[in-house]
Amino acid sequence: MNIDGATRLYAIIGDPVVQVRSPSVYTAHFARNGINAVMVAAQASPAAFDTAMRGLIALGNLDGVLITSPHKVAAMTFADRLSTRAQIVGAINALRREADGSWTGDMFDGVGFVSAAQKVTSIDAKRVLLFGCGGAGAAIAAELAAQGACSITLVDPDAHRANALRDALTRHFPACDVNVGNRGAAYDVVVNASIVGMKDDDGLPGDPGAIGAQSLIGDVVLRPPATPTALVRLAREHGAQVVTGQDMHAGQVDAIAGFFDRQKGGQ
Amino acid sequence: MNIDGATRLYAIIGDPVVQVRSPSVYTAHFARNGINAVMVAAQASPAAFDTAMRGLIALGNLDGVLITSPHKVAAMTFADRLSTRAQIVGAINALRREADGSWTGDMFDGVGFVSAAQKVTSIDAKRVLLFGCGGAGAAIAAELAAQGACSITLVDPDAHRANALRDALTRHFPACDVNVGNRGAAYDVVVNASIVGMKDDDGLPGDPGAIGAQSLIGDVVLRPPATPTALVRLAREHGAQVVTGQDMHAGQVDAIAGFFDRQKGGQ
Repeated sequence: MNIDGATRLYAIIGDPVVQVRSPSVYTAHFARNGINAVMVAAQASPAAFDTAMRGLIALGNLDGVLITSPHKVAAMTFADRLSTRAQIVGAINALRREADGSWTGDMFDGVGFVSAAQKVTSIDAKRVLLFGCGGAGAAIAAELAAQGACSITLVDPDAHRANALRDALTRHFPACDVNVGNRGAAYDVVVNASIVGMKDDDGLPGDPGAIGAQSLIGDVVLRPPATPTALVRLAREHGAQVVTGQDMHAGQVDAIAGFFDRQKGGQ
Repeated sequence: MNIDGATRLYAIIGDPVVQVRSPSVYTAHFARNGINAVMVAAQASPAAFDTAMRGLIALGNLDGVLITSPHKVAAMTFADRLSTRAQIVGAINALRREADGSWTGDMFDGVGFVSAAQKVTSIDAKRVLLFGCGGAGAAIAAELAAQGACSITLVDPDAHRANALRDALTRHFPACDVNVGNRGAAYDVVVNASIVGMKDDDGLPGDPGAIGAQSLIGDVVLRPPATPTALVRLAREHGAQVVTGQDMHAGQVDAIAGFFDRQKGGQ
């Protein structure tokens, strides 16, 4: 990899950014594919975000932006069009400049989980229990519905948030039975998209119901491999398939790289 | 060199930028010195320049900006303080973020010539003839005066521009005898900072006077080594010391790297 005057730019904007892996991951992707481009981290506070974004997209050689916390909602105003899943989630984590100079926004936070899950099982016709209806939960729910889940049960301490997500999902995916509140039904897929599990002594995010070898358990919480969340520990004890936060991040990379590469092809 | 979330950013902003060498030169400099930083090219049209600059300096992990054509004058508004030479030239090509968040502007276009010249001779007490009083000429004149040139004769088809530069130089360097118009006096140093020589069939930028082995001849025009300018050819025929446009660019790198590195040290 060598940076020169013709190098195309991508940025990941967030606050903080020192921990982000995208600069090394996508810069390596570009190099492997013979694309003269780099991704750099761009640190912008909430107060500086609007000015920073205006400046970045004013650069003629900047082709895309990834958006991380806390800017995923604010970034939507920079998109001239939004994918369906971005509309459902109400947030984006990727912006791509099109050939005509306009910007397309998309949300890949759910794609990472679903593509990781699909490596071990099909989502089609599955019954899902989802803890947490914030940005990550909404993104995962939208992607599961898009991939054919037959029902999704939403659990969140904020009833308004859970109901709003149910309504958005039902509007876009009428074939999927979306409901709020865990009534102890049987589930094929259980996903934790809440923050429960981040602390060492956290328990389960709620009652996951019966877990067996056919179950698929996902947890967005990023933990050191040696100290998984209580939900992941329970899943492994019952021989279930597990998708961790690390798996979800890995699952996003190909999807986002493809999103950026389609722009290259002029599609 | 590996880009990650902690990588500090530098940008060179211009229009166009595909030809700039600074991204590879300074990124290599950072890598050699164990500094986790890269310089990227940032293409901004004159209409986009203000927005782009505001965005770049809003990034908390961006430490410096180089400015190239056509933005060197417009960039001054982003400096909270200016070096003396930048004030004389009325343009900057480098901005550095200080520890307190303010921005210092400086102009290194003249430093490149003078540091290259000083590798072959001292500037102190030298009589200088300078063709061209635009940005490059003003930068070189200011640096020559700062290094002790005893006289500088300015030649430019635009008398107003030549007079304005004479006045600025005299104000800042009263010990240097600055005058306008070539009266055929004897000169130790002859510098072409005009565009004469860019075209293949260009002649001399004016009468350089007597040239001998003790003369130092400089020419900012970037030409392929095989087809130097008429002034450089004449200088070589007379066995004079020569500083080419390539030499000047090389001479800038150390000075600018030092400018950026001083920030690192918190000075």
